Amino acid sequence: MTQIDPKLDLVLERVIDVAPELVWGAWTQPEHIKKWFTPVPWQTVECEIDLKPGGIFRTVMRGPDGEQMPNAGCYLEIVPNRKLVWTSALSPGFRPQASETPVPFVFTAIIAMVPEGKGTRYTATVMHGSAESAKQHAEMGFYEGWGKALDQLVEAAKKF
Amino acid sequence: MTQIDPKLDLVLERVIDVAPELVWGAWTQPEHIKKWFTPVPWQTVECEIDLKPGGIFRTVMRGPDGEQMPNAGCYLEIVPNRKLVWTSALSPGFRPQASETPVPFVFTAIIAMVPEGKGTRYTATVMHGSAESAKQHAEMGFYEGWGKALDQLVEAAKKF
Repeated sequence: MTQIDPKLDLVLERVIDVAPELVWGAWTQPEHIKKWFTPVPWQTVECEIDLKPGGIFRTVMRGPDGEQMPNAGCYLEIVPNRKLVWTSALSPGFRPQASETPVPFVFTAIIAMVPEGKGTRYTATVMHGSAESAKQHAEMGFYEGWGKALDQLVEAAKKF
Repeated sequence: MTQIDPKLDLVLERVIDVAPELVWGAWTQPEHIKKWFTPVPWQTVECEIDLKPGGIFRTVMRGPDGEQMPNAGCYLEIVPNRKLVWTSALSPGFRPQASETPVPFVFTAIIAMVPEGKGTRYTATVMHGSAESAKQHAEMGFYEGWGKALDQLVEAAKKF
């Protein structure tokens, strides 16, 4: 199981009224990701997914002024409809991320989906390598951002 | 398959006269690792292995003057008797390595074992995030060090 470290991890947990299978689809199909992944007014304009350990998970987010923010990481663990793990510390093929990568910090995200009634107990655990990175991510608006994105996911999934 | 980048990767390939199953044992059992992992006069004095994706691969190497060099990474991919992948970019549980980690660079290593006659075509591919890291690793003596360790592995494995 995930070893949570309160100094290093940010956790968003919520029970949502869509089934795990729909949450899984929302997270693993590029056309779905584009609908919900980025809190408006930001948009996800590109998404590439190769759903296997070491496979690419790449997105390009576009801000309201047209600024673009590319991200490319890789998947680590895939348990259909239950658990998805990826990291920004490794690029596709498990290669370490270039040290000149223009991101403030790297993280590993674990998305867990447990059936609860007709819905899902959804837990996003985002692990960092230092307390400073975790604090920085929190101050950048992790809870608001991931929370709003989750609202968007639920809304989108109900229309699948 | 592994995407080799000649600027970023160091590769040691050799046909050795021990079977893949013995090479696998040498790499995955702590009591064996201690026999061969570190080129003499260095020794591997501690080894901890949890052989699953995200599981710990930790060693402590001791130099001739008693200096100690600890390393802890995690496994990424495990294909018994054929392929073992681990990285120093992530600590156990897939957590990003602390940025203050006192190592000059991180890498991901892929150990591939292909049966060849009664022996093994052994390929160690060590991937870095930048050309600078790869150069630094080469200058630290990657080829001599991993080559000598492989000699030690073969010698040890013949006595299993």
